[in-house]
Amino acid sequence: MKKYAAQSRILVAIDCIIFGFDGAELKLLLIQRGLEPEKGKWSLMGGFVEQEEGLENAAARILRQLTGLENVYMEQLQAFGDPNRDPVERTLSIAWFALVDIHKYEKQLSDDHHPEWVPVKKLPPLIFDHRHMVDIAKKRLQYKAALHPLLFELLPDSFTIPQLFNLYQAVYDKKLDKRNFNRKLLSAKLLIKQKHKEKANSRRGAFYYKLDKRKYYKHRDAFMSFLPTRNIFS
Amino acid sequence: MKKYAAQSRILVAIDCIIFGFDGAELKLLLIQRGLEPEKGKWSLMGGFVEQEEGLENAAARILRQLTGLENVYMEQLQAFGDPNRDPVERTLSIAWFALVDIHKYEKQLSDDHHPEWVPVKKLPPLIFDHRHMVDIAKKRLQYKAALHPLLFELLPDSFTIPQLFNLYQAVYDKKLDKRNFNRKLLSAKLLIKQKHKEKANSRRGAFYYKLDKRKYYKHRDAFMSFLPTRNIFS
Repeated sequence: MKKYAAQSRILVAIDCIIFGFDGAELKLLLIQRGLEPEKGKWSLMGGFVEQEEGLENAAARILRQLTGLENVYMEQLQAFGDPNRDPVERTLSIAWFALVDIHKYEKQLSDDHHPEWVPVKKLPPLIFDHRHMVDIAKKRLQYKAALHPLLFELLPDSFTIPQLFNLYQAVYDKKLDKRNFNRKLLSAKLLIKQKHKEKANSRRGAFYYKLDKRKYYKHRDAFMSFLPTRNIFS
Repeated sequence: MKKYAAQSRILVAIDCIIFGFDGAELKLLLIQRGLEPEKGKWSLMGGFVEQEEGLENAAARILRQLTGLENVYMEQLQAFGDPNRDPVERTLSIAWFALVDIHKYEKQLSDDHHPEWVPVKKLPPLIFDHRHMVDIAKKRLQYKAALHPLLFELLPDSFTIPQLFNLYQAVYDKKLDKRNFNRKLLSAKLLIKQKHKEKANSRRGAFYYKLDKRKYYKHRDAFMSFLPTRNIFS
């Protein structure tokens, strides 16, 4: 079949925004860019989409090549298409984002390109429009976390309530009321209390909890249950 | 500056998913495709992105050229990038979506390319992956409407509670409880009751309401107020 008429073809890239949580802080995985321009500056994990490659596969390949990470669940954020966003040549970038438990992936993280976890609160200057991408990704995270209990993806199997509380405060950039948070959280009955305590951060210690996975997966995609009129106009 | 090495450049298109509401039904604006392949089949409003053009401008231009519609607020949905989605040549499509009040735009709608409002419940077969795009757009609409009162964008200045109720049922594909809906809606105090009634659809008639715009705009982007713990785990 004939190709389309003389339309412009555009370079297409992928950028991966990988959020991680280490129990205390929300972090972002960054590397130092390996090619000119801006070589050596801090960057998201990026690369070009190949002619025969789907976007999801391209995102997984680029993340694996630059960081060693595999089987990370990523969602597409959106396309960033300002004609001047890359000074070399017009490059459309499709951004993907993920949430991971930092400890779960620390053995996989390859050192070839020196990927580093950097606190979201203290990001260095990033190349091109990457800071804008991070801001949009954080907004999407806030949206999704408001309707799904998806922040549990960022936590280890056993976690404490103060850890979860820190995570919510970090994602929403907001001081929350601790007592209210605990009460609502426990009344949801999604958590199973464990016998042992975490004692590194306080003398009294904090009990570990595990997620009730059966209930969690049942509700994870069922955001209709949070809906509609009750919450919308409150 | 030198261009990037021998990377593949890809054709980039835009597709516009325009939802409209006419007081009773949720509809989608479609046209019959003007070029081969699939010429004459039902399609979203689509076209190619030009080399120097931003994505938002491209979306507005394509919508204007094909339908006459201008100043429609659109949001980017996401990129659709399956290498085989277009049989002629790999074409990446960036989909945009919008919500409009059908009556507000009926005078603007140009007849050059025969755009038509089709009920979402009775869509004809669409070309390529356009049906998939519509499904994803509808999900996004459900998400956003759960956190913002944005469905009012779809309604005329004066509307009745039964119209709003129909709209929510259409967006969520779900039978809702009418009394519960009314109670929650009115308790939000976002609406101002008008003196006149709509009488076309029932003998008793239904009072018209207007949105309290000051309150509406104050809350429209403030989804933190719907958040966090109270609704998440309910």
